[in-house]
Amino acid sequence: MSQAQSNDYILELQQLFGTEAVIHGNELQERAVSYWNAAPTEAMALVKPATTEQVSELLRWSYKHQISVVTQGGLTGCVEGCVAADDEIILSLERMNHIEVIDPIGGTAQVQAGVILETLQQAVADQQLRFPLDLGARGSCTLGGNAATNAGGINVLRYGMMRNLVLGLEAVLPDGTVVSSMNQMLKNNSGYDLKQLFIGTEGTLGVITRLVVRLFPQPLSCNSALVALDSFEQVTQLLNHLQRDLAGALSAFEVMWGDYIQRVTQPGWHKSPMSSDYSFYVMLEAEGADPDTDGARFSTLLEQSLEDGIIVDAVLPKSELERRQLWDIRENFEALYQQPPTFLYDISLPIKDMAAYVAQVKERLQERWPESECSVLGHMADGNLHLFISPLCEGERSHLHHQADEDVYEPLRQFEGAVSAEHGIGLEKKAWLGHSRSRAEVELMRALKKTLDPLSLLNPGRVFDL
Amino acid sequence: MSQAQSNDYILELQQLFGTEAVIHGNELQERAVSYWNAAPTEAMALVKPATTEQVSELLRWSYKHQISVVTQGGLTGCVEGCVAADDEIILSLERMNHIEVIDPIGGTAQVQAGVILETLQQAVADQQLRFPLDLGARGSCTLGGNAATNAGGINVLRYGMMRNLVLGLEAVLPDGTVVSSMNQMLKNNSGYDLKQLFIGTEGTLGVITRLVVRLFPQPLSCNSALVALDSFEQVTQLLNHLQRDLAGALSAFEVMWGDYIQRVTQPGWHKSPMSSDYSFYVMLEAEGADPDTDGARFSTLLEQSLEDGIIVDAVLPKSELERRQLWDIRENFEALYQQPPTFLYDISLPIKDMAAYVAQVKERLQERWPESECSVLGHMADGNLHLFISPLCEGERSHLHHQADEDVYEPLRQFEGAVSAEHGIGLEKKAWLGHSRSRAEVELMRALKKTLDPLSLLNPGRVFDL
Repeated sequence: MSQAQSNDYILELQQLFGTEAVIHGNELQERAVSYWNAAPTEAMALVKPATTEQVSELLRWSYKHQISVVTQGGLTGCVEGCVAADDEIILSLERMNHIEVIDPIGGTAQVQAGVILETLQQAVADQQLRFPLDLGARGSCTLGGNAATNAGGINVLRYGMMRNLVLGLEAVLPDGTVVSSMNQMLKNNSGYDLKQLFIGTEGTLGVITRLVVRLFPQPLSCNSALVALDSFEQVTQLLNHLQRDLAGALSAFEVMWGDYIQRVTQPGWHKSPMSSDYSFYVMLEAEGADPDTDGARFSTLLEQSLEDGIIVDAVLPKSELERRQLWDIRENFEALYQQPPTFLYDISLPIKDMAAYVAQVKERLQERWPESECSVLGHMADGNLHLFISPLCEGERSHLHHQADEDVYEPLRQFEGAVSAEHGIGLEKKAWLGHSRSRAEVELMRALKKTLDPLSLLNPGRVFDL
Repeated sequence: MSQAQSNDYILELQQLFGTEAVIHGNELQERAVSYWNAAPTEAMALVKPATTEQVSELLRWSYKHQISVVTQGGLTGCVEGCVAADDEIILSLERMNHIEVIDPIGGTAQVQAGVILETLQQAVADQQLRFPLDLGARGSCTLGGNAATNAGGINVLRYGMMRNLVLGLEAVLPDGTVVSSMNQMLKNNSGYDLKQLFIGTEGTLGVITRLVVRLFPQPLSCNSALVALDSFEQVTQLLNHLQRDLAGALSAFEVMWGDYIQRVTQPGWHKSPMSSDYSFYVMLEAEGADPDTDGARFSTLLEQSLEDGIIVDAVLPKSELERRQLWDIRENFEALYQQPPTFLYDISLPIKDMAAYVAQVKERLQERWPESECSVLGHMADGNLHLFISPLCEGERSHLHHQADEDVYEPLRQFEGAVSAEHGIGLEKKAWLGHSRSRAEVELMRALKKTLDPLSLLNPGRVFDL
């Protein structure tokens, strides 16, 4: 597209939405591509609609001109899902950031898609309520992005993924049609559940503009611990015991392989609250309703696990500060990014196969790059592991990335694992989708894309190619 | 279609699947249409495939001949979703009734779609596990039907609907393509979540053949009570208190309006364990992990509610038999079917609007049919009410049904309620879908149907017309 042509388009957009809502592509250098990539943003222009009607108007306009639109939320996605090209329009939902309704009786909140996760968490906390989706990017990610990527995080064990927390949803189709299904009820089987088309499809079938989400009562007690274990078998035992003995109360069970702890507690990084030499660590949390007895029960269960030889060490925080410090060990892994490149993976597989799988990956990496580091942690109860791989080896970044991909994804096939558990596919994992999905499945995805977005204008080329 | 033509077709089917797997339409008289309708089954033939491959073969055959196929599970659906016509083939999954794998570590079961719900419940109980979907029809409904209708029931509050319990799913498309997404993990964001296309779409987009479902640890304690209350406001208060104070443990909160209890405890029916004159009753259940303390805590919470004037009476069962008798009051409502016709409804709306809504419906019914009876109960925490309406008035059944429909569905619109919470749409509620769904939503449903089932061969005319 010529510069003159794109200048004409931008002028049209400014007339439609006002100059304050449209940023020319030449003026986007100050915006980083994403949290993960400091390079300047590329796009023909960035448009910030303020309402669903404006989103609809923008999509009608782009449909007429057959211009691709890339939707952006908080830019903390991990799979290059919203990196735009210079002939694409970026649709940013940053101005659609209003919490419209909080209904404490029904246990629901109605929000615009650009509301930041932590903003909602805090707003409902003021009413003794809880929105339980939680992840490291809470301060920047948006609810629209959480829905479009079906976000997971640290409380899935108890509350489910974002899909399970969305009751109603409004989306705009590529031709500007507004499909509003702002259901407030836990149950609605009146025809197809259309919101499922937009949850987890990474913005490829429509632009999510508003949501109704579930709220829960704030837990009255919260008990946490970091525990150490000698073998993966014991980690599995501990999970089974706690799932039975804490029933619905167990809310987090975050496993960390020993080498993860050793690396993030190197001098200058986190202070380790116990020896760093154990094979496995688990960050545990249980939320209860009886502050008088929950703490004692939690401690008793851990003491029992110590006596039974399931765990070998445990630290219980004595204050919210200490609790936060324990969580920081799990959530703040900057120490792993000291010697770039470091590649982050997000896979899932049956729990029973995890130990064997990780051993295989580490073995392959050691053979390929003897100096390489591989740190593993994850939401174990969900079948979800994250791997951080630093080749520590000379080479072109994209080539190293592809080699690491091979070492992570090839061994996954035999366990019928998923190349993405919670991050999505985006551009980054597109080449590997076939490792987790059959030809018939991908063909059906394509058929849906062609039905909802026949000109392939929304986030084109993400997830799969047509 | 001529008798000769259909005889030829049936011969072909018998050659493909064996005579034991094909029942001629003339020999179906012994089969009732459904649990709700004793009339003989109509169809060209009924075919009972034994494997996914046979389902695929049957659909390829029907695609070639452009013959409609109606899929049947346990025949306990409430909305005439699987009533066939005499030029349609019935596909019964009754022979696909094998539990393939129970994985206690991963907490999953892999089953064929024809497995009966109670069969799975019992099989996993033998391994101290629990499949938590539960509903009155447990002894006859199938897991395939549960998935196709996104079944709800009495434990949705804690465990979610069937959609939330299905991890993986295999379905056959109308052209015979097998789409197998037998995911075992809680998390899998590798591309679109295709199983959502088949859950709750009532067999109109594909035939579900196999499933992977989630299992949970068996609860170690279970505490139940039937309580009485004077006003709906108190019912709401009780729900809020218990959701906070029992946190993840509250598993059932089944509200019954006083007139429901009065009718089902008439002489000759259930024995009422307390006065039948209260305005509201709630059947409560909490599942916990600490048998030593859970019972005492449950009783204390109820005593506190009595002291605070939130509840006015309570009965706690002293044995499993007594517990079962209390549940029977909630689940066995044959007393309401004494003076036919009685029409059953399944609506959802925000909890805060329930009392006003029910009052409006009762007022309309009283005006229309002064002798009529309207009994209300439901899964209140899910926003879901069931209404049993007996006009007690002369008139043609379908005409009375339509009038009752008007009185139930018209007042629902102002509250943005759903004409189906858990039963689905089928044939019965098709005319009312527009009360809960916009034109844009129904158009999108049609677009999906045309994409997956372009010849409209699977359960045609159910849910909506093309």
